Amino acid sequence: MIKAIEWKHNRLFIIDQTKLPGKLVKFECKTPQQVAEAIVNMKVRGAPAIGVVAAFGVYLGIKRPPLAKTFEQLLSQVEKLCAMLGKTRPTAVNLFWALDRMKRCAQNNRDHKLSTLRDILLREAMNIYKEDERVTKSIAGTGAELIRDGDTIMTHCNAGALATVGVGTALGIVVEAAHKHSGIKVLVGETRPRLQGARLTAWELKQARIPFHLITDNMAAHFMKKGMINVVIVGADRVAMNGDVANKIGTYGLAMLAYHHNIPFYVAAPVSTFDRNLLNGDLIPIEERDPAEVTMINDKPISVPGVKALNPAFDVTPHRYVSAIITELGIVRAPFDQNLKNLFANLL
Amino acid sequence: MIKAIEWKHNRLFIIDQTKLPGKLVKFECKTPQQVAEAIVNMKVRGAPAIGVVAAFGVYLGIKRPPLAKTFEQLLSQVEKLCAMLGKTRPTAVNLFWALDRMKRCAQNNRDHKLSTLRDILLREAMNIYKEDERVTKSIAGTGAELIRDGDTIMTHCNAGALATVGVGTALGIVVEAAHKHSGIKVLVGETRPRLQGARLTAWELKQARIPFHLITDNMAAHFMKKGMINVVIVGADRVAMNGDVANKIGTYGLAMLAYHHNIPFYVAAPVSTFDRNLLNGDLIPIEERDPAEVTMINDKPISVPGVKALNPAFDVTPHRYVSAIITELGIVRAPFDQNLKNLFANLL
Repeated sequence: MIKAIEWKHNRLFIIDQTKLPGKLVKFECKTPQQVAEAIVNMKVRGAPAIGVVAAFGVYLGIKRPPLAKTFEQLLSQVEKLCAMLGKTRPTAVNLFWALDRMKRCAQNNRDHKLSTLRDILLREAMNIYKEDERVTKSIAGTGAELIRDGDTIMTHCNAGALATVGVGTALGIVVEAAHKHSGIKVLVGETRPRLQGARLTAWELKQARIPFHLITDNMAAHFMKKGMINVVIVGADRVAMNGDVANKIGTYGLAMLAYHHNIPFYVAAPVSTFDRNLLNGDLIPIEERDPAEVTMINDKPISVPGVKALNPAFDVTPHRYVSAIITELGIVRAPFDQNLKNLFANLL
Repeated sequence: MIKAIEWKHNRLFIIDQTKLPGKLVKFECKTPQQVAEAIVNMKVRGAPAIGVVAAFGVYLGIKRPPLAKTFEQLLSQVEKLCAMLGKTRPTAVNLFWALDRMKRCAQNNRDHKLSTLRDILLREAMNIYKEDERVTKSIAGTGAELIRDGDTIMTHCNAGALATVGVGTALGIVVEAAHKHSGIKVLVGETRPRLQGARLTAWELKQARIPFHLITDNMAAHFMKKGMINVVIVGADRVAMNGDVANKIGTYGLAMLAYHHNIPFYVAAPVSTFDRNLLNGDLIPIEERDPAEVTMINDKPISVPGVKALNPAFDVTPHRYVSAIITELGIVRAPFDQNLKNLFANLL
């Protein structure tokens, strides 16, 4: 069982995903700054996973000397840590959701002794961790029911165990489907520029012994037309309340192509990935990353010296191209605005 | 002026395009076998260019000892050379078109002395070469008229000077448009797996001092939605008589995405790229290349050991997604079957 993030003996350990699949290296994040650096440099990535490590990052900050001496000092520490950790990556909303939980937890427990409050904050981080395990397991089970024997599933980027602390979202469904159904095959889009499909999803599928083929991202349409893709499943970094989905760059094109080939396009996303303040996806901030991610592969240039490149890390898929969103509370279909409202009304 | 192929002092020189953009290396092909090897390994690539080198390859074969002593021997040599060179790559029809010209040229000149006939065959190869210069210049001029000031043009793969012996087809139009119009910019799709966009098109645009940005192939839809692409232009490896277009893998997806974003999608193709025996694109043979092209970049693996990959080198774009085909005889639009019939009726 792959564990991208571990909390052991009061210490935070992370698999350095930039080194996969060549090397499986775990390292300890001792400070909130190290957590922030690991998120920025994508040593840990995947919307649910960065929420979890950020929550632990807050705890790592408040337990380091100088310890706060009053509740106000502690709350101020928490707020500053949340602000610092919140600046690491702008698109995935799970990060802000987890940090908000830590802040609210501090505010709601002001009457405790400070040492107890620190323990309560640790417990909150551990709750976020454990919830992700339950939630992704539930999503995997629910989503697997949408798959049929013999299906070839295409997936993009990595929404597997490495992107969460549980079994993964989209890839959790794939793995569960491969257990439940016979003849499941996978097409893995390599996912330029960071090659999460080639590096991480391939690594997870190999460990799970599920048959797959790697393809370049631009081959998807060809295989759709050939009838070689039965269903597409991806994760999400932020879902708006009308069902618009921000996810890894390339998702939008894939969704539109699936739509016009009459191939179901499913998004797997825990409730923590929904931005309940956002009416539609147009306002989701899209992270622009270093152009060197496009112009260099394996530390070698792939183009001319001085080449300029664009590098949006995510795109937004309008809900009309989404067949269903698979959450731990069930499967949501169009009309998404109404059905998501109902879903969350029951929750609160 | 970039010359991918040169015939000088009765010798054939080729730029080794697998070494670009790092090194500009020219090498001599002394034998038809070396020509075939250069085509197979994509040292020379691009539909028009491989037609031209194959024609010279035939000549290199017949001028080597043992020389044919009768017309029948010479014709048999030509036919064997054409068979050998025709096995190098299956999709681009210009290869077969050029080889057919060489064969017909031999058949039509049986009454000449053998030494004269060899000279005639050399002249035929040189005609194919010179025609490509004229034809691509004409396509560039015609296509540039479809572009407006300030347009951002997206292109895929490399259909430039390196892919022809003239100014290129799709990229010839881009360069001509940048001369004729103000504010032309280019988005270059990197074109996995062989990265012809990143390596070759970027190199040509840099030499031409035309501003461009490199993007990964999966970013195209995002920039289309953002209104950052005004027109897409690509080359072709084979066009059927109903306007279906075989071109570098990724073209079909790009065309479909352009269509649904109301962005004109133009194909630039000389008459030699049309397969006049083919009613539609379904029967175009699609070359499957070594999966290592997908699983390795710069000689380093990008995925897990033993990973399986699929590697179709081309795809077929149905004519409904093609706004126009730009040829040296003019611009062809839907209904393509009728309009192509008319175009070629005038020609013969």
